[in-house]
Amino acid sequence: MSDILEQLAEVLAQRRQASPDSSYVASLHDKGLNKILEKVGEEATETIIAAKDVSDEASAKALLAETADLWFHCMVMLSHLGLSHEAVLAELGRRFGLSGLEEKAARNQ
Amino acid sequence: MSDILEQLAEVLAQRRQASPDSSYVASLHDKGLNKILEKVGEEATETIIAAKDVSDEASAKALLAETADLWFHCMVMLSHLGLSHEAVLAELGRRFGLSGLEEKAARNQ
Amino acid sequence: MSDILEQLAEVLAQRRQASPDSSYVASLHDKGLNKILEKVGEEATETIIAAKDVSDEASAKALLAETADLWFHCMVMLSHLGLSHEAVLAELGRRFGLSGLEEKAARNQ
Amino acid sequence: MSDILEQLAEVLAQRRQASPDSSYVASLHDKGLNKILEKVGEEATETIIAAKDVSDEASAKALLAETADLWFHCMVMLSHLGLSHEAVLAELGRRFGLSGLEEKAARNQ
Repeated sequence: MSDILEQLAEVLAQRRQASPDSSYVASLHDKGLNKILEKVGEEATETIIAAKDVSDEASAKALLAETADLWFHCMVMLSHLGLSHEAVLAELGRRFGLSGLEEKAARNQ
Repeated sequence: MSDILEQLAEVLAQRRQASPDSSYVASLHDKGLNKILEKVGEEATETIIAAKDVSDEASAKALLAETADLWFHCMVMLSHLGLSHEAVLAELGRRFGLSGLEEKAARNQ
Repeated sequence: MSDILEQLAEVLAQRRQASPDSSYVASLHDKGLNKILEKVGEEATETIIAAKDVSDEASAKALLAETADLWFHCMVMLSHLGLSHEAVLAELGRRFGLSGLEEKAARNQ
Repeated sequence: MSDILEQLAEVLAQRRQASPDSSYVASLHDKGLNKILEKVGEEATETIIAAKDVSDEASAKALLAETADLWFHCMVMLSHLGLSHEAVLAELGRRFGLSGLEEKAARNQ
């Protein structure tokens, strides 16, 4: 499961090269940073509204979909600026004393 | 690197049990959903502003830190509502035809 | 100039009664509170991005248009919930020791 | 009531000259545009959350207070960039075929 972001980053890098007419990702890059950031703000708002509405399984699923939208557009933003989601995860790891490498080693013992 | 979110989810689950006085995560849960969602909105705004300011390595690092803040508070939101970040990743996987399981299998071959 | 919000509130009240097909305001009310709040969030994001881009007269005009969009959708939100923009202005007046009535009287002296 | 924004703009212009230690408005200007825009985003989020919670008089009052906060920080943003709230109102007037001047004349008949 945890490799999804890595795979997604690869897919996003491929689609960036596609025609803006055929790929949503390419069209976002084509429209530029402001359009991508508008989507980040829009999806953050929709995440917040969906979270306020969580009351059953269907509304919980709706929140998961909005959160996926938000993370997806954050990934496009990072890609647009030549940055990697791995640097974001590394920052989270540093703050919480986590280390993918160390942890991987620990599990392999 | 890709296990960071999984480890972070575990840390967040542990800290939720801590005293609100000693843990930022526990204090967020204690203050409730609205406070957590305010932070999601706040960090989304800071991410957008930081992205507009990216011009060199220092400003790129600042954006990575804001994006980490945003994802972190999304993780707390999911945890507060009894939801898992894995369900968000699974949703992203479904949309993009990615599969953590298949990919794991592929690598193990 | 300062009566614009009052007139706008009247126009919004009239258009709310129109057919959702013929009026954007009616269509927002028809879609409900979540749609209206999504627009508030969207326009807030666009205001922030436009403010970061202000460098000349054209970009300043763009910010004024985004701020107008934001205030407009706030007015629709208030109307949707049966609240008045006058109550917002009264709250601002109270905080800053301003009084429309007193001030009007003072100017008429 | 409708002169409140005009009076508020005057108060904001005065306070901008004050010491950042003694005035919240001056401290916002001193911290700069990013800080002001963070507040705009923060208050937009709080407005959205408060709108989702409206169910009685107390929660309606809370929404009015958050909307006042949002408009207030928009006014500070405009002031920081040398722009006027009157230009925002004029834009709204143009869109809706409203005219403060004409309307004032009409009422005085």
